[in-house]
Amino acid sequence: MLVVELIAKKQRGEALSAEEIAFLIQGYTHGDVPDYQMSALLMAIFFQGLEESEGRTFLKAMIDSGRRINLDSISGIKVDKHSTGGVGDKTSLIIAPAVAAAGVPVPMISGRALGHTGGTLDKLESIPGFRVRLSEDEFIAVLKETGCAFGAQTSELVPADRKLYALRDVTSTVSIPPLIAASILSKKIAEGTNALVMDVKVGSGGFLRSEQEARALAATLVRWSAAENVRTVVFGTDMEQPLGKAAGNAPEIMESLEILRAGNGDKRLVDLSCALGGAMLHLGGKTGTLQEGISLFKQTLQSGAGFEKLKQIAAAQGSSSDVIEHYDRHWKPKQQRDILAERSGFLTKVSARETGFALVDLGAGRRTAADPVDHSAGIIFFVQAGAQIKPGDKLATVYWSNGLHVQDALDRLANVFQISDAPVPPVPLFAFYGDAHGIQDASNLSTLFTT
Amino acid sequence: MLVVELIAKKQRGEALSAEEIAFLIQGYTHGDVPDYQMSALLMAIFFQGLEESEGRTFLKAMIDSGRRINLDSISGIKVDKHSTGGVGDKTSLIIAPAVAAAGVPVPMISGRALGHTGGTLDKLESIPGFRVRLSEDEFIAVLKETGCAFGAQTSELVPADRKLYALRDVTSTVSIPPLIAASILSKKIAEGTNALVMDVKVGSGGFLRSEQEARALAATLVRWSAAENVRTVVFGTDMEQPLGKAAGNAPEIMESLEILRAGNGDKRLVDLSCALGGAMLHLGGKTGTLQEGISLFKQTLQSGAGFEKLKQIAAAQGSSSDVIEHYDRHWKPKQQRDILAERSGFLTKVSARETGFALVDLGAGRRTAADPVDHSAGIIFFVQAGAQIKPGDKLATVYWSNGLHVQDALDRLANVFQISDAPVPPVPLFAFYGDAHGIQDASNLSTLFTT
Repeated sequence: MLVVELIAKKQRGEALSAEEIAFLIQGYTHGDVPDYQMSALLMAIFFQGLEESEGRTFLKAMIDSGRRINLDSISGIKVDKHSTGGVGDKTSLIIAPAVAAAGVPVPMISGRALGHTGGTLDKLESIPGFRVRLSEDEFIAVLKETGCAFGAQTSELVPADRKLYALRDVTSTVSIPPLIAASILSKKIAEGTNALVMDVKVGSGGFLRSEQEARALAATLVRWSAAENVRTVVFGTDMEQPLGKAAGNAPEIMESLEILRAGNGDKRLVDLSCALGGAMLHLGGKTGTLQEGISLFKQTLQSGAGFEKLKQIAAAQGSSSDVIEHYDRHWKPKQQRDILAERSGFLTKVSARETGFALVDLGAGRRTAADPVDHSAGIIFFVQAGAQIKPGDKLATVYWSNGLHVQDALDRLANVFQISDAPVPPVPLFAFYGDAHGIQDASNLSTLFTT
Repeated sequence: MLVVELIAKKQRGEALSAEEIAFLIQGYTHGDVPDYQMSALLMAIFFQGLEESEGRTFLKAMIDSGRRINLDSISGIKVDKHSTGGVGDKTSLIIAPAVAAAGVPVPMISGRALGHTGGTLDKLESIPGFRVRLSEDEFIAVLKETGCAFGAQTSELVPADRKLYALRDVTSTVSIPPLIAASILSKKIAEGTNALVMDVKVGSGGFLRSEQEARALAATLVRWSAAENVRTVVFGTDMEQPLGKAAGNAPEIMESLEILRAGNGDKRLVDLSCALGGAMLHLGGKTGTLQEGISLFKQTLQSGAGFEKLKQIAAAQGSSSDVIEHYDRHWKPKQQRDILAERSGFLTKVSARETGFALVDLGAGRRTAADPVDHSAGIIFFVQAGAQIKPGDKLATVYWSNGLHVQDALDRLANVFQISDAPVPPVPLFAFYGDAHGIQDASNLSTLFTT
């Protein structure tokens, strides 16, 4: 098979066969297909698209590019959670321990901050001693011992995805929906999970430009994962504004621990955690309905069992229960600055996207994959979209220790808050939800939280 | 400027600015823009196209990527000829010496065989001693001495084109009309010619898929070269069947020398040589009209002055007049095989494309740029499309010395000849011709040859 002829085939709008896709992905993984041919193919795919069967073959070929973790030695239905990425989204840190505490094993392999969105691994690494670079054996051992393990993608897990993602990032070929779906699912399926709860972010703070695009991705994710025998529930949730009060690594750990102690905290953050965690308990076989799952999750959270579980996990992954218990002693940013309102009116927007870029400038995120991270840096918000504001009100406090571009961050923060004379109704948290049976509007989802 | 953002801009269908195109071409030439970003950009250009102004900026940026040869020290209007590439096309070997003999300087920088089409440099190298790798100084010295020089593209001449062409070849991005035009013209303009005669091949033996595509390219070539102060005349000519009786390097030198001796030979080959050579003499200021140019060229050819001129050029470029005079002694293929007709009927097709691939199998062409060439290998045809055939008639003789894939070549030759019961009118040699004032049908062009 000649790569140039396969590029030409896709360029003409024809579908590639399963053999051809396997040849391309295998060849690319092993370096036989060079970057310059793969990027030309990706751009042809951007314009000509992939048929359903091609996308699924891509997914399979990507899974087959590396090892598949076998979690059969762990009893029960293993359930993982994945988000397409946002700002201030620390739900994984809250959900995973609480779901494990309720008896459903959670094998969680997460990513790092890149671009304007945060990453669970960086957040965990702001817990002193916490090791996320586990070997496969260590990952399984922690999962067996505590019911939950937080790991990083190893070089053996879907190597094709690591290479492809890096290439897509620099060749403007990230926005190809079936390849986004294949990238997400390949890692989750290779990690050995039995079921999955997906949070597809809608809004400028995430990667999907429109709700329509987010819904299409959600539908693909539930369809393809069902075909791979991974039961999946998906939620489409707002990412116009940051999630919760804190953004940045250590500040988000602080907020997560506050909620894990007794279930109290920012309503949108708690509601989303309950929805995702409840769906995990439901998929894990603990309840007959999603609504019951949400109730059970809420009880678990309020009992503080998730907090105790995180102590166990931290101890098993190189940190200690004491660090978790007294985490506030470990967050010591060297500098801080309050952001005050300059005019009166209604806060009509707190931009997640601008917040994300300000975090990068503060050193909490990365401009390139090689950048070091200032774990102490972050922002605590004191207001949410919808609030009535008067001049001098404290909108947020910015923290950092060794920020190189602090002034850039402060300049950006001027664009984060939008104050207008008339109020604007806040964007609902949930946009849609669904599973392999279909995606539906989230309008009736709020009733699940009234119990 | 971020390359990924320029890729995204073109991907959205927006035009790139002159600064952006210069940045991309310069960066690519110097290795700052990697192949994988350039190939993604090329594929985006394939789908979104280039506006007229973008294409012309590409052309300028490509010329500026290297040195421009200054031919001011040579008096007279310098005129070069270029063909988009075909099978059996040895017109350069006939025209260049004859035009120089008539007093118009011909600075000719040619290419090598690649794919199924031949290259003038390989043909010249089948003349013992003939050196085509001339330095710029040597090229100018030969041109001054003889009025004609045959050179190869040096690494300083349009380096962007060399890199881009190699990349386009393996990423299915060759067929981008404005980039084809920019590739051709950048080399011709950088070589310092004042005027240009272009032969755009139409038919499956060339690179352009349809006459429409060929006409569009022709129109772009005359328009852009006029803007760069290079007067250009273009002919669109048939490349469904091989041109002339011989195909392959030494066999084509044999046929060229036969015609150069006294102007006698295959009618289509002589007619095309007269049209192209006549246009060169006209552009070179030797005649007031194209028709007069053709007459003057024909006289020169019949006088044998072109033959004498080639002897001088050969002597100046490392060979000798004696080698030219007795070239038949130098063509000594070790093997030969006749191809006989197996049935009776009319020869409706002699496929240039299949002939080209058979030549590659015989060793006369290259599968990859690094392949060595068997200069002795080739095919002599004894019939042309339109001929009436009876079983046992000799259609062609195949020659080779060290062919590695001779059986493949012989198998392919079965597809070269198509014999049917009913005759089919032969494809006319000329499809269109024109200059910066417009492209017109070639129907009235034949009258030029009646004088």
